Amino acid sequence: MAITLRQSDADFEQRFCAFLSTKREISADVDAVVHAIIARIREAGDAALIDYTRRFDRCDLEELGIAVSRSDIDAAYEQADPDTIAALKLARDRIRAHHQRQVPQDDRYSDAIGVELGSRWTAVESVGLYVPGGTASYPSSVLMNALPAAVAGVERIVMVVPASGGIINPLVLVAADLAGVSEIYRIGGAQAIAALAYGTQTIRPVVKIVGPGNAYVAAAKRQVFGTVGIDMIAGPSEVLVVADGSNDPEWVAADLLAQAEHDASAQSILMTDDAHFGKAVEDAVERQLSHLPRADTAAQSWRDFGAVILVESFEAAIPLIDRIAAEHLELAVDNADAMAERIRNAGSIFIGRHTPEVIGDYIGGCNHVLPTARSARFSSGLSVLDFVKRTSLLKLGTEQLRILGPAAIALAKAEGLDAHARSIAIRLNI
Amino acid sequence: MAITLRQSDADFEQRFCAFLSTKREISADVDAVVHAIIARIREAGDAALIDYTRRFDRCDLEELGIAVSRSDIDAAYEQADPDTIAALKLARDRIRAHHQRQVPQDDRYSDAIGVELGSRWTAVESVGLYVPGGTASYPSSVLMNALPAAVAGVERIVMVVPASGGIINPLVLVAADLAGVSEIYRIGGAQAIAALAYGTQTIRPVVKIVGPGNAYVAAAKRQVFGTVGIDMIAGPSEVLVVADGSNDPEWVAADLLAQAEHDASAQSILMTDDAHFGKAVEDAVERQLSHLPRADTAAQSWRDFGAVILVESFEAAIPLIDRIAAEHLELAVDNADAMAERIRNAGSIFIGRHTPEVIGDYIGGCNHVLPTARSARFSSGLSVLDFVKRTSLLKLGTEQLRILGPAAIALAKAEGLDAHARSIAIRLNI
Repeated sequence: MAITLRQSDADFEQRFCAFLSTKREISADVDAVVHAIIARIREAGDAALIDYTRRFDRCDLEELGIAVSRSDIDAAYEQADPDTIAALKLARDRIRAHHQRQVPQDDRYSDAIGVELGSRWTAVESVGLYVPGGTASYPSSVLMNALPAAVAGVERIVMVVPASGGIINPLVLVAADLAGVSEIYRIGGAQAIAALAYGTQTIRPVVKIVGPGNAYVAAAKRQVFGTVGIDMIAGPSEVLVVADGSNDPEWVAADLLAQAEHDASAQSILMTDDAHFGKAVEDAVERQLSHLPRADTAAQSWRDFGAVILVESFEAAIPLIDRIAAEHLELAVDNADAMAERIRNAGSIFIGRHTPEVIGDYIGGCNHVLPTARSARFSSGLSVLDFVKRTSLLKLGTEQLRILGPAAIALAKAEGLDAHARSIAIRLNI
Repeated sequence: MAITLRQSDADFEQRFCAFLSTKREISADVDAVVHAIIARIREAGDAALIDYTRRFDRCDLEELGIAVSRSDIDAAYEQADPDTIAALKLARDRIRAHHQRQVPQDDRYSDAIGVELGSRWTAVESVGLYVPGGTASYPSSVLMNALPAAVAGVERIVMVVPASGGIINPLVLVAADLAGVSEIYRIGGAQAIAALAYGTQTIRPVVKIVGPGNAYVAAAKRQVFGTVGIDMIAGPSEVLVVADGSNDPEWVAADLLAQAEHDASAQSILMTDDAHFGKAVEDAVERQLSHLPRADTAAQSWRDFGAVILVESFEAAIPLIDRIAAEHLELAVDNADAMAERIRNAGSIFIGRHTPEVIGDYIGGCNHVLPTARSARFSSGLSVLDFVKRTSLLKLGTEQLRILGPAAIALAKAEGLDAHARSIAIRLNI
């Protein structure tokens, strides 16, 4: 049973605050282990990689090779279901088209006194993409992480994926190939992150590392940050479904369960102004749970973190929605467009009754890597901007330096930085 | 004496790699102390803030007040030199004008099958700006951090600055007022970061914290990250001056020293194709050092981290420049524009002999908060984008769901996520 919060209750504010501050993950302290793994990869390179992979992934890289070959990829196309490949291609095309609109424009201009200014965007030279092994090895995530990099113009997109028992999900290899990944290695864990950051005999280092992973991968990313760039460390996923009483409770229940089946720390929240409808959705959740292959996970998520929030009106709901700042926000209400306009904090908004969040997971075109745990208040989903960087440009001639120099000298002197002042004064003979 | 690296030497590659991997800061391990400070602020709020401020800043907040008042700001205007205020206003106007060009545009469109997609940008609701006390309390940094937030539309810009012995640099208060800072508090250190992140009786919490600080401030920012957003943790500053033999060695020496005077960990690098010129610059550095108030700091920086790199040609220099990925890059060569076009990795490029880097520190208009320690390979300087976040929008109707639904179902099933598949199938009656 999910918890219920009623906006009309006297202690609502207090309970809502407690709800907002609930932690959904315990981060294991694996820093020391990860530190040792990174040190060994830096020291012994491929040999250490082979050794760790044998122990952790039961996979013999001396036999299989560290790198996945073209023929391995061709074999994956043979093994994969043709309809699924077609779906991946459709997803690839839609995601690529949407992300092409995100490529930032350079800006060069001269101001009124002839100072030339500019902002120039260039792609990061190389990116490492971590893909988890096992059941969390999702081809859709390969597309979502690799395509923004490809659209940005990153030349080397290097994927690492552990091959548990020697096996890699063929759809992961197909998705990587469709998305333009240029190199693939059969490695995972902290050792893969270290290899990407520092390089080995086989693997040239990359400049930035992205992609989800377990506690070891997350700790390794934090430890190599600085040497390379990293993306945000994603927490467990969440959905907030805002729904009025005109919805089919079964549809809304299905959306809540789609989130809950991800993992036991996922969070599904229903916000409604109709207590009867809320109850109907809860009943539908219980009914549908019994038919789900991942019922245990979904039930645990719904029990531990699920919530039904009964609001006095959708007008009164807006500030609550902004405070939750959900990764995924479904608006299954009349005038959903108008409500969407008024929401400030959300990773992605799914507008109207016919836009289940799952469409965005796969095929809508927008990215499914989104800010979790209320971080939509200050951060954005993955985009082309994560794979480019901006260089400022500034150019003065003698005339412009003469005009602006004295103010810079005044400020430098006020800050006690005489060498700063001097570097301008010496050019102006003052 | 700075080190000299000659591209023509047999061991150049090895020495250049060693040079690139030189660490310029030792980060003190202050995590435990900071952890305790944050816990006490969360527990005791204002009382703890007053207590820490009395101990660390020798400042009695019970007497002065935690908040800086309007009359304090008015008094600061009275104390400050009018010419410096005028220079700050000119800087403010130029920085604001440049940053207004960075405001990202929303994007809404419908694709060929009628799916509505969009990217909508909104400002972060509130930002905390940390300003160090003492000699590193720079009004120019207040402008550079606060103005992008103001241009982004952040409603609450909250500045904290320690008042050592009760005193705050009046120019810091003036700069804050000119930049649109809405609240100012006389606090610093880890306790100020904790107050911004969690709030106290007097200070409402903010959503994101930016600005430079010492090891305690940096550690506190890392610890509150997640609860709030943070900016990058800046390392010591650096400049790479690429100069041919036609330059006045005194000008180039002045630019190297402007960087070196910042702190002993700053780094100044000269890259030239003319060994005689290189020697002339080194001599000029020694001569000018003797006239500098901050000679000790600058001399230590130049001795420990300064470098002269003698390249075989500027053509051969381009890959080295990209590998250094300098925070500040001056191009004092013929055809500097053409060379700038070819550089990929740099925080900011100062083009031509009349654009000393110091102009960018104060008055050029571009931001002076830039990626240090080679992170320009994967990150950008501070901009309006750091104070906004993007929400994805997606809207399907029944027709679009009918077209895209089956591919999403296929992918969900291939990933073993049956509840995902069901949330679409239930709407399509399949």
